[in-house]
Amino acid sequence: MTVNKNCIIRLSKYKNALAKLKALGFVKVFSDNLADAAGVASSLVRKDFSIFGITGNKKGGYLVDELIEKVNDILGKNDIQKVVIAGAGNIGSALMKYAGFEKEGLKVSAVFDSDPSKTDKNGPVPILPIDSMKDYIKQNKIRIGIICVPDVSASGVFDIMVSSGIKGVLNFAPVSLKTQEDIIVENVNLVGELESLIYFVNASKKMK
Amino acid sequence: MTVNKNCIIRLSKYKNALAKLKALGFVKVFSDNLADAAGVASSLVRKDFSIFGITGNKKGGYLVDELIEKVNDILGKNDIQKVVIAGAGNIGSALMKYAGFEKEGLKVSAVFDSDPSKTDKNGPVPILPIDSMKDYIKQNKIRIGIICVPDVSASGVFDIMVSSGIKGVLNFAPVSLKTQEDIIVENVNLVGELESLIYFVNASKKMK
Repeated sequence: MTVNKNCIIRLSKYKNALAKLKALGFVKVFSDNLADAAGVASSLVRKDFSIFGITGNKKGGYLVDELIEKVNDILGKNDIQKVVIAGAGNIGSALMKYAGFEKEGLKVSAVFDSDPSKTDKNGPVPILPIDSMKDYIKQNKIRIGIICVPDVSASGVFDIMVSSGIKGVLNFAPVSLKTQEDIIVENVNLVGELESLIYFVNASKKMK
Repeated sequence: MTVNKNCIIRLSKYKNALAKLKALGFVKVFSDNLADAAGVASSLVRKDFSIFGITGNKKGGYLVDELIEKVNDILGKNDIQKVVIAGAGNIGSALMKYAGFEKEGLKVSAVFDSDPSKTDKNGPVPILPIDSMKDYIKQNKIRIGIICVPDVSASGVFDIMVSSGIKGVLNFAPVSLKTQEDIIVENVNLVGELESLIYFVNASKKMK
């Protein structure tokens, strides 16, 4: 069985639920609990864990602390994960300040923008000129980048990231990036997501 | 052949590319051009269009203006699409100001937040108390909602939206919403997307 993106996103949800259960004082958890939290079947929870060699006790379930440690280990959460953002517009600025990332050990190291008026070297997250992005990524050995620049600039920014050592990109620009074998690109197309919702809502209205 | 979400997201990309080609003065366009822009095979472009009864001239390609009109019609772009946002935090505020939406005829009508200090009735997009969301959605016949509240509040906000007439939800909270048959929920799990990237980047490093 191979690991796919959906499996990892489910692990991320289980981790989220586990943290809440731990805060409530739970010592043990059952696949049914995690299934409810992640909105999937409990057999899938067990399948996901078994891929990574995690087995529970049929009667006793999983030990919460042990499970959190194992899931964190799989997700690489035992190291702080540093990312850079290109583009300090609305989306880039929101992600820079997004509490959800920090809570999960994801640290935005720096943001880069081509507009000099946005430069802010002393903020909690520094905003630096885009020209310095290449050296910064190399010096800090960053491997993950987020692209929040306008679509006309996205492909140029992507090329700089890849040539500096970035291996994974979360792309918010609504364009397709020509990628290479060893670079992973995930696209979050916000306009596309909304347009798809509108289409299906309208389609179901017409069917009635 | 049925229409799925990926097909609609591709249509959204074609539309984006068509607008740029039109601006450059193009009168005709070929499936190969759109395939490049969307990063898919040209046979898939023709397949997508044929689902909606759009056929090109094999030699002459598609007429840009005609194609834009047809795609807009499919995507319901000939009407302005109004949406509401719950949550005026970092992500909600960014989406409220996101130029990408407005450019595509997506209008954020109002944002709702439980924090009274965020209320701003006179802004370009009004920020209103969450208590008024239900009436607002009903009165303005809004059908699409975006959830950007913390995960503990997400399910409550979702229930209010559904009971007010919302039929499609874009959910940024990293929790699964218990949905019903005629409500469409799309999840954008930002932490999950990043964690998935990190996992696969780390996994490919280990393989080397």
